[in-house]
Amino acid sequence: MSTYGDTFFDVRELLCELLRLFYAKNWVSGTGGGICAIESPGRLLLAPTGVHKERVTPDDLFVVDTSSGEVLEPPRNANLRPSECGEIFRAIIAARGAGSVVHSHALSAVLACDLAADDCLAIEKLEMLKGIPGVTNTDRHLMPVISNTPREPELTSEVARVLADPRFEKTRSIGVRDHGAYLWGADLWEAKKHTEVYHFLFEALVARGGRS
Amino acid sequence: MSTYGDTFFDVRELLCELLRLFYAKNWVSGTGGGICAIESPGRLLLAPTGVHKERVTPDDLFVVDTSSGEVLEPPRNANLRPSECGEIFRAIIAARGAGSVVHSHALSAVLACDLAADDCLAIEKLEMLKGIPGVTNTDRHLMPVISNTPREPELTSEVARVLADPRFEKTRSIGVRDHGAYLWGADLWEAKKHTEVYHFLFEALVARGGRS
Amino acid sequence: MSTYGDTFFDVRELLCELLRLFYAKNWVSGTGGGICAIESPGRLLLAPTGVHKERVTPDDLFVVDTSSGEVLEPPRNANLRPSECGEIFRAIIAARGAGSVVHSHALSAVLACDLAADDCLAIEKLEMLKGIPGVTNTDRHLMPVISNTPREPELTSEVARVLADPRFEKTRSIGVRDHGAYLWGADLWEAKKHTEVYHFLFEALVARGGRS
Amino acid sequence: MSTYGDTFFDVRELLCELLRLFYAKNWVSGTGGGICAIESPGRLLLAPTGVHKERVTPDDLFVVDTSSGEVLEPPRNANLRPSECGEIFRAIIAARGAGSVVHSHALSAVLACDLAADDCLAIEKLEMLKGIPGVTNTDRHLMPVISNTPREPELTSEVARVLADPRFEKTRSIGVRDHGAYLWGADLWEAKKHTEVYHFLFEALVARGGRS
Repeated sequence: MSTYGDTFFDVRELLCELLRLFYAKNWVSGTGGGICAIESPGRLLLAPTGVHKERVTPDDLFVVDTSSGEVLEPPRNANLRPSECGEIFRAIIAARGAGSVVHSHALSAVLACDLAADDCLAIEKLEMLKGIPGVTNTDRHLMPVISNTPREPELTSEVARVLADPRFEKTRSIGVRDHGAYLWGADLWEAKKHTEVYHFLFEALVARGGRS
Repeated sequence: MSTYGDTFFDVRELLCELLRLFYAKNWVSGTGGGICAIESPGRLLLAPTGVHKERVTPDDLFVVDTSSGEVLEPPRNANLRPSECGEIFRAIIAARGAGSVVHSHALSAVLACDLAADDCLAIEKLEMLKGIPGVTNTDRHLMPVISNTPREPELTSEVARVLADPRFEKTRSIGVRDHGAYLWGADLWEAKKHTEVYHFLFEALVARGGRS
Repeated sequence: MSTYGDTFFDVRELLCELLRLFYAKNWVSGTGGGICAIESPGRLLLAPTGVHKERVTPDDLFVVDTSSGEVLEPPRNANLRPSECGEIFRAIIAARGAGSVVHSHALSAVLACDLAADDCLAIEKLEMLKGIPGVTNTDRHLMPVISNTPREPELTSEVARVLADPRFEKTRSIGVRDHGAYLWGADLWEAKKHTEVYHFLFEALVARGGRS
Repeated sequence: MSTYGDTFFDVRELLCELLRLFYAKNWVSGTGGGICAIESPGRLLLAPTGVHKERVTPDDLFVVDTSSGEVLEPPRNANLRPSECGEIFRAIIAARGAGSVVHSHALSAVLACDLAADDCLAIEKLEMLKGIPGVTNTDRHLMPVISNTPREPELTSEVARVLADPRFEKTRSIGVRDHGAYLWGADLWEAKKHTEVYHFLFEALVARGGRS
């Protein structure tokens, strides 16, 4: 259990609610995308792979060890397999102290990454930048963009590399060309906030045609 | 009855739910579009034609013979007529072993087909391609595009032709110029997945202006 | 009471439901747009003007004489005034035998009218044209486009003129530059169908940039 | 309590409902945006800052003195802080007699402001202009556009300047470059109307590429 304002919420229920919300926004369609959240120290809730994300229920979630990725509690349904994003999620958690990571398959993320001349996107002149901790609307915010690979776990070393790059110390998102983005926050609520903030920035970049 | 994860679902209810979902996405507006699903061996559920698709109820469905197309059980309402797509649906089921076929009238499908230089669309450099069985993000996936005809049953021979073309053995969609697309899967859940995957691909192709 | 398939529906409830649907599609935002439907011979239900259309309830509707426009039954709330579209609605009903007319303030209608070189839009090469009675996908369908005027009733003579023009005998829509469109059908269900069909055509025309 | 038509509504409930509506339209995403409404003379309801706006409940609202901005009643949750827009909201209320002000973070507002050559947008040739009191579709309506600043309260002097500029006496909106817009009306219902009207105008300006 956690709180938002005065309201208690169940982490598993909220995680599933956010999947439904992101599905409605077309960010996790066609069974794509994913999400995780730390339920309690060392226990990471992880959505299953290959299923319609808006249909995931609290009982469908894996509990994995946040450090090792070992499955501590599988879901009741033995046919489910844990998200392929698990290793990347844990790399982001380890490097940034995140409590929740979202994996988006939004078209706006793909199209924004198309605009990246080299290994990052420079985002500036947008009030929405203030939604990222430590960033203000007068900053030129750098978000790393990595290349896609045939299998999702192969992205992990690239993710680790950009997380260690001091140019990107303020980012809460990593773009993946032709694929989407990873986005994170201290908990599900902040992950939701950063997911919405960056998707707004992606849409703005695309609408402005890469100009600022 | 079937299952998704641990949940039982009624095929007729799910078929109608998907029509409401696709209507909300603007893929079956103005009474256009359609859907079918095999209820049990030899029995194909078929939505009626000429009605607002988001209003179709389980009682409105026809049961037709999967092989012959003969109406086995008409719906209670004697004014309803079976979808004109029936023959094409059965051709796809016969050729590909599909358990469910969707007919989309999405604008994104029309605009994607506008980009096809000859008889197919080449789709590449998109992670979402992995949503199609046997296709990966490094493939150049070919989706057939056929010309529209004044009456829907006249499309059947063209559909049969492209289904037999070895270039298109992996496709789960056939585009129809100025019209939309047919999309299928092993059951309603996979048809939903492929419908969402290809519509994402259509939107990506259109947004990229045919470039990849 | 009327029926759709096997389902009875109340004309007043359905009229209000369609206003909520059209509001959700952004076709009657900012209190704009309107709708009417014949409840029984000679009695025309008319939504009030200047109110948020998605909040209109069955008790808010005027009953006016279909021929004269005289208010037969005002709504309970004495502050409401009948839609300014009343005269145009009745002109369309008289000329075409319509049972329901929708007035849309959709941006897609405005942008489609921007593409009209002279006094009409030519729409072709779209399967969705079959949603208009007597029109097929190989036709070049002409939809009249008239100029906007400072007050809505001043449009009536222009509406009457295009309704009498034999070029437009098959149209179920009249576009108004910088403003929107009027759309109609034999009853609310057909008006809904034609409204969805033409809005799809508007969006297709705009996306194709006036090319076909 | 107030009324809309025959229906009583609670100002606090309606304010929260509008936040959910605007969130669904993507006008207050990522915890951005805000709203206020006068509950009774001298008492201004103000949404909290930094929270997901679609989750705000009636108990989360601040009551501040309309003239001084002093907090008269804080919400039950002591962690909430009042919206940073408070000062701007009160400046608009003081100058224009508004009863409710909305702060939008819509992308369409940002993109429309991108089109402003100098300190305002000229909007013309749109029926939707009639949704602004005293403006008609043949007018060339001027909406002020001000530059963004690092902190929201720093915008107040610019807001005060354009509110005093006779060129803008009819406007119900002030655009802020790279940021969004402030929009207002006599009460929540009129603020909703003007918010929808101007967002339609923003989208039309952007779609027309600044041409009219």
